[in-house]
Amino acid sequence: MNVGDRHYRTIWLNEDGVSVDVIDQRWLPHEFRTVTLKTVEGVATAIRDMWVRGAPLIGVTAAYGMAIAMRADASDAGLDAAWEKLHETRPTAINLRWALDAMRALLKPLPPAERAEAAYKRAAEIADEDVELNRAIGENGLAILRKIAATKKPGEPVNILTHCNAGWLATVDYGTATAPIYLAVEAGIPVHVYVDETRPRNQGAQLTAWEMAGHGVPHTLIVDNAGGHLMQHGAVDMVIVGTDRTTANGDVANKIGTYLKALAAKDNGVPFYVALPSPTIDWTVSDGVKEIPIEERSGDEVSLVWGKTADGTVTQVRISPDASPAGNPAFDVTPARLVTGLITERGVAEASREGLQKLFPER
Amino acid sequence: MNVGDRHYRTIWLNEDGVSVDVIDQRWLPHEFRTVTLKTVEGVATAIRDMWVRGAPLIGVTAAYGMAIAMRADASDAGLDAAWEKLHETRPTAINLRWALDAMRALLKPLPPAERAEAAYKRAAEIADEDVELNRAIGENGLAILRKIAATKKPGEPVNILTHCNAGWLATVDYGTATAPIYLAVEAGIPVHVYVDETRPRNQGAQLTAWEMAGHGVPHTLIVDNAGGHLMQHGAVDMVIVGTDRTTANGDVANKIGTYLKALAAKDNGVPFYVALPSPTIDWTVSDGVKEIPIEERSGDEVSLVWGKTADGTVTQVRISPDASPAGNPAFDVTPARLVTGLITERGVAEASREGLQKLFPER
Repeated sequence: MNVGDRHYRTIWLNEDGVSVDVIDQRWLPHEFRTVTLKTVEGVATAIRDMWVRGAPLIGVTAAYGMAIAMRADASDAGLDAAWEKLHETRPTAINLRWALDAMRALLKPLPPAERAEAAYKRAAEIADEDVELNRAIGENGLAILRKIAATKKPGEPVNILTHCNAGWLATVDYGTATAPIYLAVEAGIPVHVYVDETRPRNQGAQLTAWEMAGHGVPHTLIVDNAGGHLMQHGAVDMVIVGTDRTTANGDVANKIGTYLKALAAKDNGVPFYVALPSPTIDWTVSDGVKEIPIEERSGDEVSLVWGKTADGTVTQVRISPDASPAGNPAFDVTPARLVTGLITERGVAEASREGLQKLFPER
Repeated sequence: MNVGDRHYRTIWLNEDGVSVDVIDQRWLPHEFRTVTLKTVEGVATAIRDMWVRGAPLIGVTAAYGMAIAMRADASDAGLDAAWEKLHETRPTAINLRWALDAMRALLKPLPPAERAEAAYKRAAEIADEDVELNRAIGENGLAILRKIAATKKPGEPVNILTHCNAGWLATVDYGTATAPIYLAVEAGIPVHVYVDETRPRNQGAQLTAWEMAGHGVPHTLIVDNAGGHLMQHGAVDMVIVGTDRTTANGDVANKIGTYLKALAAKDNGVPFYVALPSPTIDWTVSDGVKEIPIEERSGDEVSLVWGKTADGTVTQVRISPDASPAGNPAFDVTPARLVTGLITERGVAEASREGLQKLFPER
C-alpha cells in the first residue's frame, strides 16, 4: 500500500534481478528503512531478527532466500544448505516451512543450471499469489462494508475497529483484516479505523497505525481497554481482525485480547468478522479453547516498552517494579459463537463447521 | 500497608505535630520518595501536581492542608484563602470539595485561637475514618474470599484479578478493592493477584504491582488483554475492582477497560465484585451507560508511555506514529447485570436498586 505518495510492497525484487529489498520493520513507526538482501545469510538474518514478520511475508522472504542461494550455489548441497539455514531462523513458523518445502520440491528435480531462474520465477509467483489472496479477502469483506455504508448518512464513515496488525506489513500487500479497508478507500467509501494499540508488543500502535497514516486512512489509536466503551456508545460499526489459526468449527486463535473485543461486540450487537486465508484453517482441531496450546512469551515484553524518546532515540523503558513478575500469554481463542463471519478468499463463511464446509466442500 | 518491612500510610503527621509527610507517588514504582509538607502552598502543589492521587487521599491531604494553614493564619481571611487555594488545585474532585467544606464548617464558628488544634484533630479523624471504612469493606470482601478459599485444595491460592489501582495508595490505608486481599493475607489465606497494567496510565503496573510487591503479596502483572484468556482457562477465581461512581441501580463507572473484564467474567462464570465506600454511590443517577458523562483525556496519555530506561532515568517514550491521533476515554460503565456484588462498608449488596436499598434503607 502507500507510504505517503508512493506505493510499496513489503518485499520486492530489485532491477538487478538478484537482490530483494524489504522494509526493516523493527524501526517502525519511528523510521521507515528499507534494506537490500543480497545473500542467503542476509535473508536468514532478516527473518530471524524479525526485520520482516507476519506468516505470509516470512514465506515469501524465505522463497526469495532460496532463489538468492541458487544464484550462489545451485548444487544439491547448496539447495539443502539453504533450506536448513532458512528453516532454522524460525523453526516453528508453518508458512516458512511451507515455502521452503515448495521451493525445494520445485528445484530438486531441475538441473542446477536452471534452478536460479526457476526459483526467482516461483518466488515472484508466491508473492503475487499472496497479493491476490488478500485482494480476494478484501473484495469479500468489502461487500460487507458496503452494506454497512449503505445504512449511514452521506459522508458518514463506517467505523471499523481492528486489533493487532493483520495489515499489509504482515503480508506482501493489502493484509488480511485491512484488505477490506484499503479496498473501501479505493472504492471511495468513507471509513474510519479504531486501532487497538495491542499490548504487549504494540503492533497496533507501531504497525497498523503507521499503515493507516501512510495510506491516508482516517484512524484513531486507542488503548485495548477502550473498545468496549466505544461499542456501548455506537461508535463502532464493525470489528475486523486477523487470525493465526481457525479451527474446523470456526473458533479463532488470534492475538491476546481479541476475545475481549468479541465479547463486547456481541454484547452491543456489533458485527465481529475475522479475515483469513483458508490455509490458516486447521481442519484437525475442533474446540479451540480446549485444544489450541497458547504460547507463553517472555514477561519482559510486558514490563519493557519500546518507544522513541524526546531526543529521537528508540529505546526501551521499564513500566513496572523490578520485583513484579509478568505473565504473557500471546494469544487467546475467540469461540465461534462470538464470530459473525469468517472472511476468506472464497467468500464469507458462517463461523461453524457447517459454514466452513459449505465454502470448502473438498474438506 | 507495608513497604518492605515497614508499615506506612499514604499520609501521616510528623512528630512536630505540624507538618505532614506523604509518599510522592509520581516516582512509583521506580523510586520510593516521601516528602514533608509544611505550608499550605506545599500541600496545594502536592495535590495539583498529583504527588498524591485517589479521592480519599486527596480529601485527607486537603484537610491537613487546612490545618497547616490555620497554624500560619487562623483568621477568617486565612481560612477562606486556604479553602480557595486548596480547592483550585483540582476543582472537579468531589472528595476534595467535601473535605474542605467539612473543615470550614467546623472551623468557622470557632475562635481563631482554637482553630489550628481543632483542624489537626479533625484531619486526623478523617484519615482514621478512611482507614476504618476501607477496613470494613475489607472485612466484607474477606467473607467472600474465605468462601472461595474453602473450595480450594490446601495451600492453593485464591486467584484474584484487579484492574487499575483501587489500592492503599489511593486511600490512607488498605484501599478499597485491595482491602479484602490485604485482610486475606493477614488472615493467612493464600492469595495470588493478577494485576492488569491498566493502559493508558498504567496504574496497575506502576502502583498496584508496587503495592503487592511491597507488602509481599504474590502477584503477576499482565496486560489488560490477558484477563479473558486467563478466565477461559480457570486461572481467575474472582475479580475485584474499585469504582469512581456507582449508580442507584448498581451500574459501575470505573477505569476504562473494566467493562471488558466484567464481560469475560460473566462469560466464564467468574464472580465479579466491585468494592466501594458508600459515599461514591450516586443516588441521583440510574442508567450509568446513558447518563454518566465519560471524560475524554489527552491522547498523549496513550501515545507517550512513562518508564525507566536501562540507565535509570525515568522518562517518556512515544509508542506510535507522530501522525496518528489517539482517543482516550478515561472510564467506562459496567452494567449492573455483569456485577456479582457491591462490597460496601455495610455489607455486600446485590448490584440492583433493590439490593442497594436493602443495605441503605435511609435512601
